[in-house]
Amino acid sequence: MTAFEAEFADRLELTPEAQDLLFREARTANTFTEEPVTDEQVRAIYDLVKWGPTSMNNQPLRIVLVRSPEARGRLVEHMSGNNRAKTSIAPLVAVLAADTDFHDEFPKTFPHAPGARDLFAGDAGRREDVARLNAALQVAYFIVGVRAAGLAAGPMTGMDASAIDREFFPDGAHRTIAVVNIGHPGEQAWMARLPRLDYDEVVTTV
Amino acid sequence: MTAFEAEFADRLELTPEAQDLLFREARTANTFTEEPVTDEQVRAIYDLVKWGPTSMNNQPLRIVLVRSPEARGRLVEHMSGNNRAKTSIAPLVAVLAADTDFHDEFPKTFPHAPGARDLFAGDAGRREDVARLNAALQVAYFIVGVRAAGLAAGPMTGMDASAIDREFFPDGAHRTIAVVNIGHPGEQAWMARLPRLDYDEVVTTV
Repeated sequence: MTAFEAEFADRLELTPEAQDLLFREARTANTFTEEPVTDEQVRAIYDLVKWGPTSMNNQPLRIVLVRSPEARGRLVEHMSGNNRAKTSIAPLVAVLAADTDFHDEFPKTFPHAPGARDLFAGDAGRREDVARLNAALQVAYFIVGVRAAGLAAGPMTGMDASAIDREFFPDGAHRTIAVVNIGHPGEQAWMARLPRLDYDEVVTTV
Repeated sequence: MTAFEAEFADRLELTPEAQDLLFREARTANTFTEEPVTDEQVRAIYDLVKWGPTSMNNQPLRIVLVRSPEARGRLVEHMSGNNRAKTSIAPLVAVLAADTDFHDEFPKTFPHAPGARDLFAGDAGRREDVARLNAALQVAYFIVGVRAAGLAAGPMTGMDASAIDREFFPDGAHRTIAVVNIGHPGEQAWMARLPRLDYDEVVTTV
């Protein structure tokens, strides 16, 4: 970290160690050790990131942990290019999808507004847009949560998402957003870090 | 926190204090004190969350800080219902949008693949989908970053996003994803916390 960067890091309330764990030193892993990822670890991750905010508390993210060799095979077939090999060897693979029927949960998730479910019931197109946006927020929280657990995430969008929908969500109501490999980083788990856009390329003031 | 929850919290590498700051105690704020949010704070937030992963490092998020009363007025007009009052009084308001021309930055952001820009150049529909998904991931990282700075975020999607696009992004290439109020929480900044879905309602194993 340069002195310039350290000055920014000091301006945050989050400790430098946590900044490194979640963002500065965390990397997308392409290889993993054989150490397994337990259900208890995934429960701990979910118990943290479930608190991340969504629109009207709609929480559309659904997670499928692909643990059986048979299911892994069905998933790998629909991954693209290099993602096939990575998805074949990761200790744990999670399919992260948006539930377009999130509104059916509003009696539990938004109980003070009894009409909330009906606002969405007749508009499948709007539900799809809302579900995709909010599930994507939750995918990001999940990636942060994997790192919070001391694990490395390998999120991927290079895949035939519609085929994965058909394979893993036969109800037709889910949309796969990302597939995430999870584990402890293995040998040569990543390449040199890619450049980020500068503040002045991203932020303007009006 | 119950003993059951504390057991999950202990399974994470992230410290309990950081878990609280970013997720467990952090809340969406609806009121704020008058204390300003400085450009230096926003720079520190960006310098952290810019490291969050995106597909092919595409980084489509663009941020407009709405500081002038004139611009604030133009924005508030397109917010929905209760979001108008909140957006009127927040110390800082940020418009978070997806740049559908993210591929023009690939020579900088994905330099080892010279053909990356051309892969997207002819397909505006695909660029829009990719930009919306990845900007949503970055919106979530940004919300986490606001909290990391010890500030409260008030993210909103209840708005006329197309009208905000026309008002703030006349090039026609940006899609507003969320508007985020930022500041220190004020009096009665939030209501009782809304329920989250249980692990078994969200996670399945195959």
